[in-house]
Amino acid sequence: MPHLPADRPLGVALIGYAFMGRAHSQAWRTVGAAFDVPDIARRVIVGRDEEAVATAAHRLDWEEHATDWREVISRDDIDIVDICTPGFLHAEIAIAALEAGKHVLCEKPLANDTAEAQAMVEAAEKATARGQVAALGFTYRRVPALALARQFVADGKLGTIRQAKAAYLQDWLVDEEAGMSWRLRRETAGSGALGDIASHAIDQIQFLTGQRTTAVRGRLATMVPQRPGEDGLEDVTVDDAAWATLELDGGAIGSVEVSRMATGAKNRLTVELFGTSGALRFDLENPNELWYLDATVPVTEQGFTRVLVTEPEHPYLEAWWPQGHVLGWENAFTNQARDLLLAIRDEDAAYAPDFADGLALQRVLDAVIASDAADGAGVTL
Amino acid sequence: MPHLPADRPLGVALIGYAFMGRAHSQAWRTVGAAFDVPDIARRVIVGRDEEAVATAAHRLDWEEHATDWREVISRDDIDIVDICTPGFLHAEIAIAALEAGKHVLCEKPLANDTAEAQAMVEAAEKATARGQVAALGFTYRRVPALALARQFVADGKLGTIRQAKAAYLQDWLVDEEAGMSWRLRRETAGSGALGDIASHAIDQIQFLTGQRTTAVRGRLATMVPQRPGEDGLEDVTVDDAAWATLELDGGAIGSVEVSRMATGAKNRLTVELFGTSGALRFDLENPNELWYLDATVPVTEQGFTRVLVTEPEHPYLEAWWPQGHVLGWENAFTNQARDLLLAIRDEDAAYAPDFADGLALQRVLDAVIASDAADGAGVTL
Amino acid sequence: MPHLPADRPLGVALIGYAFMGRAHSQAWRTVGAAFDVPDIARRVIVGRDEEAVATAAHRLDWEEHATDWREVISRDDIDIVDICTPGFLHAEIAIAALEAGKHVLCEKPLANDTAEAQAMVEAAEKATARGQVAALGFTYRRVPALALARQFVADGKLGTIRQAKAAYLQDWLVDEEAGMSWRLRRETAGSGALGDIASHAIDQIQFLTGQRTTAVRGRLATMVPQRPGEDGLEDVTVDDAAWATLELDGGAIGSVEVSRMATGAKNRLTVELFGTSGALRFDLENPNELWYLDATVPVTEQGFTRVLVTEPEHPYLEAWWPQGHVLGWENAFTNQARDLLLAIRDEDAAYAPDFADGLALQRVLDAVIASDAADGAGVTL
Amino acid sequence: MPHLPADRPLGVALIGYAFMGRAHSQAWRTVGAAFDVPDIARRVIVGRDEEAVATAAHRLDWEEHATDWREVISRDDIDIVDICTPGFLHAEIAIAALEAGKHVLCEKPLANDTAEAQAMVEAAEKATARGQVAALGFTYRRVPALALARQFVADGKLGTIRQAKAAYLQDWLVDEEAGMSWRLRRETAGSGALGDIASHAIDQIQFLTGQRTTAVRGRLATMVPQRPGEDGLEDVTVDDAAWATLELDGGAIGSVEVSRMATGAKNRLTVELFGTSGALRFDLENPNELWYLDATVPVTEQGFTRVLVTEPEHPYLEAWWPQGHVLGWENAFTNQARDLLLAIRDEDAAYAPDFADGLALQRVLDAVIASDAADGAGVTL
Repeated sequence: MPHLPADRPLGVALIGYAFMGRAHSQAWRTVGAAFDVPDIARRVIVGRDEEAVATAAHRLDWEEHATDWREVISRDDIDIVDICTPGFLHAEIAIAALEAGKHVLCEKPLANDTAEAQAMVEAAEKATARGQVAALGFTYRRVPALALARQFVADGKLGTIRQAKAAYLQDWLVDEEAGMSWRLRRETAGSGALGDIASHAIDQIQFLTGQRTTAVRGRLATMVPQRPGEDGLEDVTVDDAAWATLELDGGAIGSVEVSRMATGAKNRLTVELFGTSGALRFDLENPNELWYLDATVPVTEQGFTRVLVTEPEHPYLEAWWPQGHVLGWENAFTNQARDLLLAIRDEDAAYAPDFADGLALQRVLDAVIASDAADGAGVTL
Repeated sequence: MPHLPADRPLGVALIGYAFMGRAHSQAWRTVGAAFDVPDIARRVIVGRDEEAVATAAHRLDWEEHATDWREVISRDDIDIVDICTPGFLHAEIAIAALEAGKHVLCEKPLANDTAEAQAMVEAAEKATARGQVAALGFTYRRVPALALARQFVADGKLGTIRQAKAAYLQDWLVDEEAGMSWRLRRETAGSGALGDIASHAIDQIQFLTGQRTTAVRGRLATMVPQRPGEDGLEDVTVDDAAWATLELDGGAIGSVEVSRMATGAKNRLTVELFGTSGALRFDLENPNELWYLDATVPVTEQGFTRVLVTEPEHPYLEAWWPQGHVLGWENAFTNQARDLLLAIRDEDAAYAPDFADGLALQRVLDAVIASDAADGAGVTL
Repeated sequence: MPHLPADRPLGVALIGYAFMGRAHSQAWRTVGAAFDVPDIARRVIVGRDEEAVATAAHRLDWEEHATDWREVISRDDIDIVDICTPGFLHAEIAIAALEAGKHVLCEKPLANDTAEAQAMVEAAEKATARGQVAALGFTYRRVPALALARQFVADGKLGTIRQAKAAYLQDWLVDEEAGMSWRLRRETAGSGALGDIASHAIDQIQFLTGQRTTAVRGRLATMVPQRPGEDGLEDVTVDDAAWATLELDGGAIGSVEVSRMATGAKNRLTVELFGTSGALRFDLENPNELWYLDATVPVTEQGFTRVLVTEPEHPYLEAWWPQGHVLGWENAFTNQARDLLLAIRDEDAAYAPDFADGLALQRVLDAVIASDAADGAGVTL
Repeated sequence: MPHLPADRPLGVALIGYAFMGRAHSQAWRTVGAAFDVPDIARRVIVGRDEEAVATAAHRLDWEEHATDWREVISRDDIDIVDICTPGFLHAEIAIAALEAGKHVLCEKPLANDTAEAQAMVEAAEKATARGQVAALGFTYRRVPALALARQFVADGKLGTIRQAKAAYLQDWLVDEEAGMSWRLRRETAGSGALGDIASHAIDQIQFLTGQRTTAVRGRLATMVPQRPGEDGLEDVTVDDAAWATLELDGGAIGSVEVSRMATGAKNRLTVELFGTSGALRFDLENPNELWYLDATVPVTEQGFTRVLVTEPEHPYLEAWWPQGHVLGWENAFTNQARDLLLAIRDEDAAYAPDFADGLALQRVLDAVIASDAADGAGVTL
């Protein structure tokens, strides 16, 4: 398969038009203005509710709308299928799209269970061999400050990392009168805070350190065990909060704490790395700042430096605004779209994370669940 | 003039495609996705260099490009003329566009001198009487945190404001080898840090307090008096930094400090307001935070509260992402486009700031220059 | 025993003159100036090295020095024995002093093992029945901001606390060439970061929430397993870092992370509490600040408030400086001395923490060790 | 005069026992414990109200009390006279003490008017020639972070300083019902916020930059012109707030803003310095932090570094606690006592600031008043 169509822009189809669909639409509308990438056409947005998806197509500026994703992925003018549906639909759509020869960008989590994820990895491997890209959307890797953090680690600025600490705290379930939803049932959501936000925390630890988890100890807790449903109180069958420690293959130990009950925390993903020659801190509520400590400068000058990650020399920043003009949460999606387009264009550009990364992460989450079920005893991967 | 065309979207023409043109393009591409506003069409982007403007049209997603703004403003399918040119072109274009019956959004500063600004105000008054909107782009008023600050003041949360303090610090001229440019010559730029960034600081003081300046005392300084030009050293004829105190008609005193020599400050517009029952602080390098102190709560609990301005109840936020998902610098331009479209649609919606506000601000800047020329002695407006 | 001697000040004997001895000396010199407390006399400081303790007596302003603590605790003019020796001497001295009828202030940890701690509790119970005070020095409870935090919780401002998070991060062992010492051997130190600093983190969680630990899951790690000793590399036999989750009897879950390898963290004890109607944050590196979120105010104004804990209405502050004049680390020791003196003077004033609290905490630490030995499986207390 | 008495400690007399008297007492009690300095004896504390000063002597741990300062300064066992009285008494006591051969430490401001200050300088010059020390108490110079800042500047880390910015904001007069006092009358206080806190701000600018003021432009404001006195409303005859810009002899421009009406600011002295190769920031509400930006490191790593000034290598820190154990406001007074004792002991140690510095500062304050009286026009020194 040629990487780029000869005579037309890359055609994009977006499946899903809710929160993630809106964020991805913003990225597809913006990527060509911000970056020097192949031309794209926003061909079609897909959803089950025709009226709603028609409205979305109009507002989010897609050429067409559709309700049948199978038909869409068979179209010749579609090159990229961007999957923003709930997780239980990921496998079916992604596998079909890959088999149809399309590049795929799939939102996290890769799938709701390991079997599905395994099948997706197999489909992706075949597709990749054919020159397709199968990309997984842990978008926070493309927040410039986190991309810079990874660069600092890869450049050796931190020396050997011994300890990594990530937390993802939210508070949208503090009110015990907040009602039941599909997110609070195991059969639809898989897990609670674990799959939703611990997945980000663990991905960041692995991404930033460049180390993989070999063993975990975990705890899950459901703090409000019943919530009002349509017919009275229903059991909450997923976790409200989760904790884990991770053994990493490079020798570091990671710690993870996530919660949907952390009063006052809105979207507080924090990461800290401690190495033999430096340290890093990050907080998603101030996403344009990376705090870096260089342990090799004289101790009288040492401390955490607030790097405002808005210089043209910083990752992704050459394309945006002048220094000091900060980016928002949404821009990471545009950066993600850029990297996907470049991976499609440039034969030797690999895209990470890929589906195998998603499967590996799923196994870490499963191990946390297994450890909790064993009263916290360690589980080896 | 009917507020909205019956059978087509509002047609927008953008004059200018540099930094501000890119920011405004982002806004015009995004506003319909984020907000419930009248439909628009991004008809044409205008610039003098045909090749460059053609490229801009392609990347920034405008239907057409053009090199003759006069022709563009005469087109029937253009309803809004958005002026992002250098300041010395504002008057000619804005007046012509208003006379042609178009709505106008003009970037700040309104004009390079008071005579031009006066003519623009007259044209705007006539146009407004015909139902047109003439809007001035002090975009920072539409940073959600600053809009919230204004709301807090208007609601009386601060009581009587006695003291307002604004600074705008940048550092792009610290290097004395940085070369001459049109921005450093009085004949092209009018003034230096004063017109460029003190204008924002003073606008914020007046906007947030709701008070107008009645007298000023000022100081200007050029710290690097000569810089390398094409033929050797040239004189810098504008200010690198400026200071002023303002008497405001509500009894408050404002202080302003701006600089392009403030090493380490990237785009640090800070505002602080001190009132009889509360206080506010803001820093544009963390634009999603408003710090509010309620002086009426028990003293044991008192302090500045970091309000993360990302709740649906906050100004402009109903349209964006869930709580805790922060916005970037560029989003204020989208908010501005929204307000302009609503002012066009809704007969009784006034848009502020208008051209008269721009003229009033110009007079404050002139008074600072006059005060400095008088060795700091006060100048009454 | 009468609470206060009729005709002379309370006589204080201090055993130990190193870091803690200096801090306690500062407190004894200062307490009468800051607070309205019974008069004291700094009678004698005790140490094994006569020359060193003589110097200490002179510099730290004690009337006398001595080398035999047994003799000192038999003196009639000594009412308070303040124990700042290494932990393995606590039990012997404290029990003897209590049996001699003295009030005792014992630095943490109470003892190096549970058997000793148990004996100390028994001696303290008998002494308390005789009207003596047996006080344990978890001094951070008397940092004003943490005392205020406890007051907020006790007043119900946080509602039901569901989650508590404490970390204590230091970096003095980052350098792997840092040599062996008694602190790195199990036989002398008992444990490493666990006993030294996790003890503080766990004490804060229990103190602030008012809840006791009922079960733990833990992990310990020794990141640099050998360090240079006098005769070559020696094994480090204690932990460099520790993690735990705690089940608390009020339903909350606590998490603890401590490390001596956290590059750039100097003395960073942080605590966060999340309740149904509010939240709190604290960082010992900025000890005069308490961050409080009131979840009951309108969401547009909600956020963490930085309370600068220097108002006369704040705990312990009536005695110090005007508002805004911050206190240092050492002042908490003076506050502690005050509370001890008041507990001695006022028959009905109980002093917390007492020896039983120290024993209970020791059992939590033991449970962490046991859990780690069981590969992380939970241990019930 | 021999620098140190041969056979006894240096005898200290403290005149004044209110706020400053308490702070200085704390310093005299602590200095010998913290630092390796000559022995002192806290001989006598002096005040007009015998009962009050007797109580103070007991609580603050002075050997004796007295009511007649003239008698005290004639005592042979007194070597140091520490003056903590209101400003209008400074001249008389200091001159007498210097003429009696004593070393003098005088709290700021040096005097209430320039004539008195001039006489004090003359007395100090004679005394200095005899080997006495005449020290002025701008204690904030001895906050370790500010001493470190000065060291950084002196070491050239900032390059050429072009801009300095200091503010001192307090809020104790926000309430317009707060009553009249001697501090609000020109005849007793000299000036308001200007003399009280702008003096600190200006002293810091001059101290840190090492540059002297050559010209000023200023503004004063009285925001609450009348306040309740014993017999009804009285006129406030001093300033509530003040602003100034300073021309400095090294080419920098300084700006100053001070206020007693800055709601929510408790004791917020902030200083910022901008140089050609670096920048510094400080805030007295977090006095253990110095924020340093090194403009010579790669731009990707650049930013303000939070240096926690608690390392043994930092100024004054060798004597205090381990790293990360922060100091309080009061410790600067102990550092000041140390420097005074060393200046007395070491023939070649000069103490700064001296009385001449106090006089020079008084002249800057006078120039601000003169400039305000001239509607802001510049006044040359």
